Amino acid sequence: MKKSIPLILVSNDDGIYAKGINSLVDFVKDLGEIVVVAPSFPQSGMGHAITIHEHIRLDKSKHYGVIEAYECSGTPVDCIKLAKHFILKDRKPDLILSGINHGSNSSVSVIYSGTMSAAIEGAMEGIPSVGFSLANYDHDADFEACRPYVRQIVEASLKENFPEHTALNVNFPDIKLAEIKGIKVCRQAHARWQEEFENRKDPRGRDYFWLSGNFTNLDTGKDTDEAALAEGYVSIVPCHFDLTAYSTLARVNEMFS
Amino acid sequence: MKKSIPLILVSNDDGIYAKGINSLVDFVKDLGEIVVVAPSFPQSGMGHAITIHEHIRLDKSKHYGVIEAYECSGTPVDCIKLAKHFILKDRKPDLILSGINHGSNSSVSVIYSGTMSAAIEGAMEGIPSVGFSLANYDHDADFEACRPYVRQIVEASLKENFPEHTALNVNFPDIKLAEIKGIKVCRQAHARWQEEFENRKDPRGRDYFWLSGNFTNLDTGKDTDEAALAEGYVSIVPCHFDLTAYSTLARVNEMFS
Repeated sequence: MKKSIPLILVSNDDGIYAKGINSLVDFVKDLGEIVVVAPSFPQSGMGHAITIHEHIRLDKSKHYGVIEAYECSGTPVDCIKLAKHFILKDRKPDLILSGINHGSNSSVSVIYSGTMSAAIEGAMEGIPSVGFSLANYDHDADFEACRPYVRQIVEASLKENFPEHTALNVNFPDIKLAEIKGIKVCRQAHARWQEEFENRKDPRGRDYFWLSGNFTNLDTGKDTDEAALAEGYVSIVPCHFDLTAYSTLARVNEMFS
Repeated sequence: MKKSIPLILVSNDDGIYAKGINSLVDFVKDLGEIVVVAPSFPQSGMGHAITIHEHIRLDKSKHYGVIEAYECSGTPVDCIKLAKHFILKDRKPDLILSGINHGSNSSVSVIYSGTMSAAIEGAMEGIPSVGFSLANYDHDADFEACRPYVRQIVEASLKENFPEHTALNVNFPDIKLAEIKGIKVCRQAHARWQEEFENRKDPRGRDYFWLSGNFTNLDTGKDTDEAALAEGYVSIVPCHFDLTAYSTLARVNEMFS
């Protein structure tokens, strides 16, 4: 441990009242000083959005009893930025935790995920950060099987060797604790969402659309998060925020020479 | 060229009426069949957000005259998804263009950028995609110096050798055409935004916050987009959507073994 009582900032994208973040706080509350800064209302699918065109509200919340907590009208990334600049100020967190998300954020879902964007924002600030997600979208999902793994991952992440500017994308299969085979460190599977927009008409006859979609794994690799989850493992993908496609640099250079 | 008349889908994050997307359409309208699907209102900083908790509106627009155009109430990524599934359907675009953004999206700004997320969504769908941004936030910025470079990049991107599952992040320095030294293919600079939230009180005495920030380049490399822009080049960073931090896999494995 870096200190006797590490400072742990907790956020999510399902909102401060979601069962997932309540479970996360419960699982780790004895592992450090916890400060919760989470959205006032659900912000799933917000990706790395920040609030530029609107102002942001930030209110103290008594929802977590003696644990210091705030609800924020902005996005998950706004929560991390406001926590850093207005709440914690000179106190740099030892760890940022985000989640537990109601629904998987494995493979390319990481790109759309507000939960993971909060963690990646932490990584951008040089703070060890971990996003947790359970492959169950139910509002009343049972997170209890995650408890020992969350604790193991948090304890390991509080040690000195956490890689710099990295956020861990942790996904849990929706199975019983006894069925979980352990932890696998993986790469992000190549996959896609096949959208299915539902086209409806409002009472005035005007079209509107609802986004839904089906996930398709296009990756046959055994070293991916999708493969690990399918086998019953907890998957961990270390993520960075350098989007440079290094392997294409030579070819793109050719295009413009 | 793949076909005699390539199909080019155009979007942005500043909204369909922004000067930047009007300039982009003007610059490329003779290079293919153009279809515009862009947000109804500004969506800067939306990152890779998608609209899950609200419905989405999509309306035909006559703003571009004979060019087929639609305005969408959703995010830039929603625009690409709706364009693909409701407007173009079986017609796969040969190229997706996004921008020209009012303001730079170089370095880590790519993560927050709706403009680049539209392009990255295109890359996820296996479509060659390019996001353009000018380092000038003014609503009335002059995009004219971008014209020959936009055309060169679009023409090069319509050829067969565009790398798969890649989006080009093109940034223009805010200088005159004669001062631009050419194009440089780069890696994403390591940098950070130092936020400065402005704390105000509403007429009822309740706090609210506005997000602003200063960009700091932390990267002394000569091969970065920031270095290229500072020298007067148009920067091009090829971007992918695999966030796996491959260089950390061994260390993260150690943490959990």
